[in-house]
Amino acid sequence: MIAAPRFTPLVESLPSTIPFVGPETLERRRGAAFRVRVGANESAFGISASAAEAMREATRNISWYNDPEGYELRSAIAALHGVSMDEVLLGAGIDEMLGNVVRMTVEPGQPVVTSLGAYPTFNYHVAGFGGVLETVPYRDDRIDLEALLDAVRRLRAPLVFLANPDNPMGTWHDAAEVRAFIEELPEWTLLVLDEAYIEFAPASAVFPIEAGDPRVIRMRTFSKAHGMAGARIGYAVAPARTIGGLGRIRNHFGVNRIAQAGALASLGDTAFIASVVEEVARGRNDYYALARRLGLSTLQSATNFVAIDMGGYGDRARAVLGRLQDQGVFVRMPGVAPLDRCIRVTVGTAEERALFAEIFEAVAGE
Amino acid sequence: MIAAPRFTPLVESLPSTIPFVGPETLERRRGAAFRVRVGANESAFGISASAAEAMREATRNISWYNDPEGYELRSAIAALHGVSMDEVLLGAGIDEMLGNVVRMTVEPGQPVVTSLGAYPTFNYHVAGFGGVLETVPYRDDRIDLEALLDAVRRLRAPLVFLANPDNPMGTWHDAAEVRAFIEELPEWTLLVLDEAYIEFAPASAVFPIEAGDPRVIRMRTFSKAHGMAGARIGYAVAPARTIGGLGRIRNHFGVNRIAQAGALASLGDTAFIASVVEEVARGRNDYYALARRLGLSTLQSATNFVAIDMGGYGDRARAVLGRLQDQGVFVRMPGVAPLDRCIRVTVGTAEERALFAEIFEAVAGE
Repeated sequence: MIAAPRFTPLVESLPSTIPFVGPETLERRRGAAFRVRVGANESAFGISASAAEAMREATRNISWYNDPEGYELRSAIAALHGVSMDEVLLGAGIDEMLGNVVRMTVEPGQPVVTSLGAYPTFNYHVAGFGGVLETVPYRDDRIDLEALLDAVRRLRAPLVFLANPDNPMGTWHDAAEVRAFIEELPEWTLLVLDEAYIEFAPASAVFPIEAGDPRVIRMRTFSKAHGMAGARIGYAVAPARTIGGLGRIRNHFGVNRIAQAGALASLGDTAFIASVVEEVARGRNDYYALARRLGLSTLQSATNFVAIDMGGYGDRARAVLGRLQDQGVFVRMPGVAPLDRCIRVTVGTAEERALFAEIFEAVAGE
Repeated sequence: MIAAPRFTPLVESLPSTIPFVGPETLERRRGAAFRVRVGANESAFGISASAAEAMREATRNISWYNDPEGYELRSAIAALHGVSMDEVLLGAGIDEMLGNVVRMTVEPGQPVVTSLGAYPTFNYHVAGFGGVLETVPYRDDRIDLEALLDAVRRLRAPLVFLANPDNPMGTWHDAAEVRAFIEELPEWTLLVLDEAYIEFAPASAVFPIEAGDPRVIRMRTFSKAHGMAGARIGYAVAPARTIGGLGRIRNHFGVNRIAQAGALASLGDTAFIASVVEEVARGRNDYYALARRLGLSTLQSATNFVAIDMGGYGDRARAVLGRLQDQGVFVRMPGVAPLDRCIRVTVGTAEERALFAEIFEAVAGE
């Protein structure tokens, strides 16, 4: 019996669990398509017409490799934020960049700090490179910045993760709080500031991207407000030394040509993004009202989803989630207590929201 | 002065060199677009009409994440090769999968065997994970299987790379030779058999993909014959344990939705691929004839490119390459002696070949 290939001890030790089970997998298990797909915080409002056009156009040239420098898109991003091109990195979604940041900064056995119940894919990458996760509980359903900072200092962690606005709760911190948090960071720590949902946040949560601080790498995505989740494209802004470090290990030809073209066009269509943000705000209000009608509370959200509090200790939310899935509704929920009192519902179209409301009303009363 | 982020010692030690400079970068340097782009072994013959249609259609649904299991495409690939789905991995091009295979099998300081002048991106990943490259010279411009095997045994290397047909020389080994090579591999070694160009190879070089041998992972791409280089999609076939190991570390949502749709359609259009292969054979013959006319020799190629031997010791090929670029022709050449006697010219369209011939004839005579 041949036992090859021999894995490294680290890979041998890793579990086979994956960060997210896709809705398609659930559909195959249940043997039918979902009627409403409001579980992955995908945009229900499509893509900019100019992005659609740019993507169709890029398909015609698909036999050419993408520009590994992503020159045009990086130029546009640099101009948008008033930084230089060598302070901008493209990635096949934030997920890919998270993996590379962990790889760049974390040696096996080193501590990495995040919040208990925060983005599972970050945790997946930390484990995958042998880092030791230290998780800090949320406080009143918000990221506990003070506790994050304490953990970073206590453990001398080289890396800390913060999503603002947060996923899966949808809560946020104002810019002043995040800036104060950054100011307190030790100089040997890198903060990944994941701003995937920033377009949906109140102005008070937004602060300009300045690439100057070596303790921070800011990440943005085209998967949410821009509606291009399936294209796999996001970007990061950080000082040139940080971006250069990632350039030593990244997959240089990894960002699809069509995605680059679509993202460039979408970046220029600020009117479209504004209309999406408006639609999403309307949808959140619908969900707030729905929950109120049913005597349930919600968390105020700065994202394109709403966490509805089912009460109890995870049991209720899990039961409702199961019944929703049985009725053809794809939603997700936080994985750990006490966040798992909630289900997390993405803002769908008005039609999807109405259908969700109908099914949820029936299911929540059971 | 804040020095963060601190890189791991490994990343700190890596050079900033990249495997390939893209033609777009060269165009920006010279301040003009290339007239003929025959340097990256991209297909000049487009994509299948059904793939184009599938990709346009997938663009409409781009707001949804891709299926992280790639179920439909993996099913089709499994059926094509008569293997099971859990023996098939999708990746954002072979490049991404190479990185993950290295990460899965190579610890810092361990030896990895490849050929001197073979695929630079593989070498990049080996360095990136701290592996120590052992390179074996080509023999008569072909991969030296015996020497590869000797090096693997001598160093007890956990990983060895072999492209068949080969890039950058275009030469190949018949199936019987490769199979004999595999039979001789120690049980603790994994062979990456990169078959990116296999569609262009003579039937004698092709042997069925059987997922049974744990010492082998076979890699195929949609970037060459399928004409989808910019979509970034390829696949690997290996025993389920190997694919499962890669599943513990891969970026699960990494393969663009449009790419998956296009690849699935293209896989079904065997008539299109056959027509591309025929066109490429014609183009190779044109390059052989061109070289003969100029008194130059060529290597018989089993790929979509031809290595033209300029003689000398790298100096001549480099000079010709520079003059070609000055004239607006993008070609590449092998990086090391003695392969660097050659320039490597991708088969373009009939029109591109004619323009290349015209410019090359002028330039080669200088």
